Amino acid sequence: MSDLPKHVEMIEVGPRDGLQIEPRILTTDEKVRMVDALADSGIRQIEAGSFVNPKAVPQMADTGELFDQLDKHPGVRYRALWLNPKGLERALANGHVDMDGKLTLTASETFVKRNTNRSIDETFEQMPAWIGAYRDAGIAADSLGVMAAFGCNFEGYIPEDKVISLIGRAMGIMADNGCTLRHLSLADTMGWASPGQIKSMVGKVRGKWPELTLKLHLHDTRGCAIANAVAAMEMGVAEFDASVGGLGGCPFAGHKGAAGNVCTEDLVFACGEMGVETGIDLDALVEAAKLTEELVGHVLPGKVMKGGTLTRWKEHHA
Amino acid sequence: MSDLPKHVEMIEVGPRDGLQIEPRILTTDEKVRMVDALADSGIRQIEAGSFVNPKAVPQMADTGELFDQLDKHPGVRYRALWLNPKGLERALANGHVDMDGKLTLTASETFVKRNTNRSIDETFEQMPAWIGAYRDAGIAADSLGVMAAFGCNFEGYIPEDKVISLIGRAMGIMADNGCTLRHLSLADTMGWASPGQIKSMVGKVRGKWPELTLKLHLHDTRGCAIANAVAAMEMGVAEFDASVGGLGGCPFAGHKGAAGNVCTEDLVFACGEMGVETGIDLDALVEAAKLTEELVGHVLPGKVMKGGTLTRWKEHHA
Repeated sequence: MSDLPKHVEMIEVGPRDGLQIEPRILTTDEKVRMVDALADSGIRQIEAGSFVNPKAVPQMADTGELFDQLDKHPGVRYRALWLNPKGLERALANGHVDMDGKLTLTASETFVKRNTNRSIDETFEQMPAWIGAYRDAGIAADSLGVMAAFGCNFEGYIPEDKVISLIGRAMGIMADNGCTLRHLSLADTMGWASPGQIKSMVGKVRGKWPELTLKLHLHDTRGCAIANAVAAMEMGVAEFDASVGGLGGCPFAGHKGAAGNVCTEDLVFACGEMGVETGIDLDALVEAAKLTEELVGHVLPGKVMKGGTLTRWKEHHA
Repeated sequence: MSDLPKHVEMIEVGPRDGLQIEPRILTTDEKVRMVDALADSGIRQIEAGSFVNPKAVPQMADTGELFDQLDKHPGVRYRALWLNPKGLERALANGHVDMDGKLTLTASETFVKRNTNRSIDETFEQMPAWIGAYRDAGIAADSLGVMAAFGCNFEGYIPEDKVISLIGRAMGIMADNGCTLRHLSLADTMGWASPGQIKSMVGKVRGKWPELTLKLHLHDTRGCAIANAVAAMEMGVAEFDASVGGLGGCPFAGHKGAAGNVCTEDLVFACGEMGVETGIDLDALVEAAKLTEELVGHVLPGKVMKGGTLTRWKEHHA
């Protein structure tokens, strides 16, 4: 385990990816409390909401108000999601969102159709317009997210070469439009990845593009999320999306009742036990998880919040 | 991942370690159905019950009847637990139990006191009597289980050297009494281990005693169980206790609501995805998990039983 990163950065996506499938609509004030509790724990990046169609995702209808009301902690990036130019416009107009110049594609034709009503080719065709829109706002498009990068409930395993080729195609479009990919995020949107697949894919990406920083977005659909994160860390990956309490799931994946995102505090625990710093106070994060559980009104799948953090034993541990 | 074992053996402990804390007492017939479903899935070793004080563990009161009524599948070992000479006597008298010559110790003084009302020293003092009792029954005492081998909710992290020294002491007693340790089981009874700790401990044990077969008994108390199993497999460990549906928990560990044993079908899934054979039909095992869920009457923590097995995609996967 000597090649684990010294520091791992958590991008908390619970308030966005997590809450969006929750049946109980939280009040804006409750969301502010949840995001505050997360920031108080030492998390430095929080995806707080999404500027999407409120009819499609009612839970996200108040994202604008949420950003207006957030008590932004210094040093914390409060990020958001948008899926179309109107969403980007709303995020920009809000004025409180820490903006990213991010492009997105999906490695499964069936899934991108169901999720966005566009084909993969159409996704690529729209990239220059996205890059232009970011440029107009003074933002460099330097980040790419690949959804369903490991497998898809409708298409099966996604071949690595397909993912590599899609990334290459996006990089080409970015170069043609005067920007450079720096941050790549691979999403196991439907929880297909296993540790071997993670190591293989990460190895291929790092071998081909060693200059990219790599983030993983993992779901615990089949119980491998923590093992996958550990495998990725062993390959040098030092950024993970994660969801407090293990909140989440994918509304378009067609498997109700399945587990959500990798649980932030469980991953922070695993990091801490392996000597990897996260800068996060695990006990405070567990409090945020308990608050979240109270707000959504049902038991969350996180384990450390029930099993205990072990922090009180830490000083005695080598 | 090239050094993973080719085959991993699952020892299903759900009917024993799992059920013992369930509030609903299953009928013997229900237990027979559960154990049959597990054997039908291809599991080759099942800890079906325990010959313990029925007042202390009411769920196990009918273990004798269960063994009487089991339809034993050829090639399947139906194992049991006993904690004192009377339990061993009952297991022997039953006649249907596949007996093991196993000795047990606990690496935490506080936990062994709470769990068995004996000290570690007293555990060692009783070993010659156990070995003798096994010998009288024609069984070679060749197996040792170490409970709380990684950490203890009452004592904290257990130092590796302490565990190594306890194993060495047991081996000495075994040698003095004419038997040889062949099978070592390390139990993370309260879910303290993390992948780094697993690799370090397994490396130390294998380095010192390469001739021993090593089994791990993992709990998912803090979400690391699958990651720990993967770490162990990377170190060559090829035997795991596991519990269908993730059933279980430890009645003496003092943290109610914590997760149970590593989930059998989630571990079988992870193995399958990494090319490690288990000989188990994952879909049939998920059926056994769903039956178990129905019998205990509440949702079990297993993930694959909700997220889906992916087996129908397997033929298309490299």
